[in-house]
Amino acid sequence: MSYTNLDLVNECDSFPYYHSDPNLYVASISTYYELRVESHDYALGYLLPSVAEIFRNLPNWDLNDNDRTLTLTGGNNASERSDFIMKTFLAMKETRYFKVLEKWRDELYPVYGKDKELLFNVERCASPLLGVITYGVHLVAYVMKDYEMKFWIPRRARNKQTYGGMLDNAVAGGIASGEGPFESLVRECGEEASLPEDLVRSKAKACGTISYFCIRNERAGGETRLLQPECQYVYELELPEDVVPKPGDDEVEEFYLWSVQEVQEAMARGEFKPNCAMVLLDFFIRHGILTSENEKDYIEIVARLHRRLEFPTL
Amino acid sequence: MSYTNLDLVNECDSFPYYHSDPNLYVASISTYYELRVESHDYALGYLLPSVAEIFRNLPNWDLNDNDRTLTLTGGNNASERSDFIMKTFLAMKETRYFKVLEKWRDELYPVYGKDKELLFNVERCASPLLGVITYGVHLVAYVMKDYEMKFWIPRRARNKQTYGGMLDNAVAGGIASGEGPFESLVRECGEEASLPEDLVRSKAKACGTISYFCIRNERAGGETRLLQPECQYVYELELPEDVVPKPGDDEVEEFYLWSVQEVQEAMARGEFKPNCAMVLLDFFIRHGILTSENEKDYIEIVARLHRRLEFPTL
Repeated sequence: MSYTNLDLVNECDSFPYYHSDPNLYVASISTYYELRVESHDYALGYLLPSVAEIFRNLPNWDLNDNDRTLTLTGGNNASERSDFIMKTFLAMKETRYFKVLEKWRDELYPVYGKDKELLFNVERCASPLLGVITYGVHLVAYVMKDYEMKFWIPRRARNKQTYGGMLDNAVAGGIASGEGPFESLVRECGEEASLPEDLVRSKAKACGTISYFCIRNERAGGETRLLQPECQYVYELELPEDVVPKPGDDEVEEFYLWSVQEVQEAMARGEFKPNCAMVLLDFFIRHGILTSENEKDYIEIVARLHRRLEFPTL
Repeated sequence: MSYTNLDLVNECDSFPYYHSDPNLYVASISTYYELRVESHDYALGYLLPSVAEIFRNLPNWDLNDNDRTLTLTGGNNASERSDFIMKTFLAMKETRYFKVLEKWRDELYPVYGKDKELLFNVERCASPLLGVITYGVHLVAYVMKDYEMKFWIPRRARNKQTYGGMLDNAVAGGIASGEGPFESLVRECGEEASLPEDLVRSKAKACGTISYFCIRNERAGGETRLLQPECQYVYELELPEDVVPKPGDDEVEEFYLWSVQEVQEAMARGEFKPNCAMVLLDFFIRHGILTSENEKDYIEIVARLHRRLEFPTL
């Protein structure tokens, strides 16, 4: 099996588009429940009916089958809402009903409203149950050797529960509530690749975002079909030849230093974690490695890497 | 009046999004007619009712008020369809009914189907009447002076009918049918800025596309409210200090060499042609000049610069 670049995009950005087939889209959307918080009349995420059902009759939640909405009714501000949500998921964790809750991270992810105000925080592992947008940082780190780019590519530990043994970006991680994207990047560069902080602060360059809407499959771990819209802040960093990333924990098995061709071949074999392939495609496009002359799906890929998500973003 | 960067995006990408308000979107879409060609059961563009009406009872065209479609029934291949379309618009030009047809260019723009096959060509100035996607190239040319980027910015001739006197990108132009994006860029670099061909071929770098869906206003010239979805192939070129762009025709008044700050100030004053501002925003994002730390609408802007258009693209 060889994957085209568009196949790789389709794997990550798997939620349907309205315009591809309006009737199918509306039919598919209408099976979901919209997540809302009281007195905010718009969707913050989509829940599967099987997930929404578990909130029926829970205190502080209102499940409306006519509107197909699940509304958090408890709490008047971010702090109170976050407390109610935490209590709900801690109770659900005890019942062991949802597999995704078994990977509790003790890390809070923010959910924003239309005025970019924080509406609530939610435990990281619970966010795909609510189908809310999550944020992360990804770094492409490369070296120039004799005018040729070489990329530092880590392989994830084989025993990792999610995407074990797959290839990753040099540094990648979720942005916890209260942390800015660049500060998150600096922290992850130290933790995941042991990169010197002053080098990262002075040389890492922000290059935009990629965004996509994923329907989770078995490789993500836990329940399948959960909805996961994501936005990744993308950075790149040209490293001096003598700076070698080193795994800072046991999540990475080893780092490879690969040419464009080696990276592209591994992508075509489907070896990269799907959203990491998206970040690399974006890099290749920005740097004139993928062009309209060598990639037949160029326009579609560029647009799909930057999906406008249907929920409020930061 | 000072424009935010999101204001500049809104001006160019002015067609509504389904998700912003599904009811409003569907209501607004349902006033348009879909352009189709026979035995291809999907939209290639949107026409205003006032435009579609002119095709009623014309030979080779079928206007269906129930489906709200305008279908080209004449022609079995791209060549035959293009001939019928040319005849239609030449006849319309004679009547002087549409102002946009008075700027006849004798330049053909391609329209593609779902399999990326050429369906027909249409005279450039007529394409906004049909509301089909058009393609162009844009080049950002800059110089590094003492580690600071300086941008070559042309001012359009005051007497130009469209966007006269406004600021532009170093090189920009439409891609005619049969021409590849890079070849188009090389040609325009010679015509518009007198840049040496070998320099452009060896140093200009493809950096992706921007795409947007514009509702034309009075500044575009001709009828207003016409629908204009566009895709621009974006290139950048670092010029040596001794290469100075020179207007190759009378369409450009002069070239300025401006710092980031000077460019951003002119953008905030609304002095740039709208789609040129989009290309510059994309450049500033790719180069870490606009970041999530200094641009509050960062995520929204990145997504809006790369709209997935609802008609087939090349």
